[in-house]
Amino acid sequence: TNMSPVKVFGHPMLTNVARVLLFLEEVGAEYELVPVDFVAGEHKRPQHPFAKMPGFQDGDLVLFESRAIAKYILRKYGGTAGLDLLGENSGIEELAMVDMWTEVEAQQYYPAISPVVFECIIIPFIIPGGGAAPNQTVVDESLERLRGVLGIYEARLEKSRYLAGDSISFADLNHIPFTFYFMTTPYAKVFDDYPKVKAWWEMLMGRGPRCRGSASICLRSL
Amino acid sequence: TNMSPVKVFGHPMLTNVARVLLFLEEVGAEYELVPVDFVAGEHKRPQHPFAKMPGFQDGDLVLFESRAIAKYILRKYGGTAGLDLLGENSGIEELAMVDMWTEVEAQQYYPAISPVVFECIIIPFIIPGGGAAPNQTVVDESLERLRGVLGIYEARLEKSRYLAGDSISFADLNHIPFTFYFMTTPYAKVFDDYPKVKAWWEMLMGRGPRCRGSASICLRSL
Ligand SMILES: N[C@@H](CCC(=O)N[C@@H](CS)C(=O)NCC(=O)O)C(=O)O
Ligand SMILES: N[C@@H](CCC(=O)N[C@@H](CS)C(=O)NCC(=O)O)C(=O)O
Repeated sequence: TNMSPVKVFGHPMLTNVARVLLFLEEVGAEYELVPVDFVAGEHKRPQHPFAKMPGFQDGDLVLFESRAIAKYILRKYGGTAGLDLLGENSGIEELAMVDMWTEVEAQQYYPAISPVVFECIIIPFIIPGGGAAPNQTVVDESLERLRGVLGIYEARLEKSRYLAGDSISFADLNHIPFTFYFMTTPYAKVFDDYPKVKAWWEMLMGRGPRCRGSASICLRSL
Repeated sequence: TNMSPVKVFGHPMLTNVARVLLFLEEVGAEYELVPVDFVAGEHKRPQHPFAKMPGFQDGDLVLFESRAIAKYILRKYGGTAGLDLLGENSGIEELAMVDMWTEVEAQQYYPAISPVVFECIIIPFIIPGGGAAPNQTVVDESLERLRGVLGIYEARLEKSRYLAGDSISFADLNHIPFTFYFMTTPYAKVFDDYPKVKAWWEMLMGRGPRCRGSASICLRSL
């Protein structure tokens, strides 16, 4: 196997790049962050077929899609001692619950929360001079959608400690990058109406220096 | 383990329901399709927290999110003899390629192709009397996005027989429901500009009665 550190291509403030960094920090892996000047369009290069960030390289293996990279990292480095984050060492029912809530993050949570993060944080950062004010219609519609999703999470977290069951999993950790950013917007208090969700989030943030460290990467360059 | 057939809740013409049926047919499992009158809003019931189709039940296990259900089905029934569709019996690199192209289907292909299928097939079916004509702006923008994705698939399929490598995988089969519908629209010929993609699609359709059978489920009630 190849011994040089894996490479992550992208800007660490971008949430999907932060997702990959988060899992690298989670497992304590060495990595090299290769900055990409995306304002200058440097990511529109053949290294990533979809011209998006993050890109990832481990020797001859070139990967894209942040959630697939994150799973590879957990498998390569054996995950976190004592935890079965992907559910692969449990029965197929437990594994299905991890898969299901991982899909919910990608298909329901992400489409609801990401427009708020883009409008309030990413776009003002990318556009020189801060760009225009956030599009309030987009923000309001997304918050409405997010409330719907959070209501379902609240009901779920009344029945189990974490999304996929009573142990923390990949599905929970996957929520960190976008939620971490969201909590810096004026809309963070939306979570106050969902006490179980709020407590779950505080539990994720309270896991110790490793997790707080990885989360702070997201905001390193803000 | 529970011996009664698994249940799928939803209407078989809906593409995400068809995805689940496709994998049940792929492994030759017995199942019960529980029709849901979604025009009457019957799916807006507590059985599916997001009030979407498909829902799925295997004894006490209740699942939603079609891609997670599909993986559960492959694991429960041992997949297809001689094939490692999820890549779980291979190395972590091969598994990462299956995960990655599965994410690409969900994050790039699906958002590009599904609006065309919704505008041309699903909406006219749902709305009594066929509804209005398809929204041509939505269709045109989606076709443009789809061409971008197909260009990347073409480059990939110049290098390998299937998306994740030289063996067929979950990532390939996941494309069937929406593509099968798309091929019945006036825009099917878009694929003619991507010969490797076209050949890949024909290979998927040519796998024999099992696969054609599952695909025809999608259109059973058209
Ligand atoms: N589904 C992809 C999304 C990648 C993505 O959209 N990345 C954004 C940054 S968070 C990007 O590269 N945007 C710049 C662009 O599209 O030009 C993943 O999870 O990796
Ligand atoms: N990501 C979900 C999507 C489910 C979904 O959107 N289903 C559609 C039919 S394909 C639906 O139930 N639409 C009716 C509605 O939203 O009321 C999955 O893959 O299962």
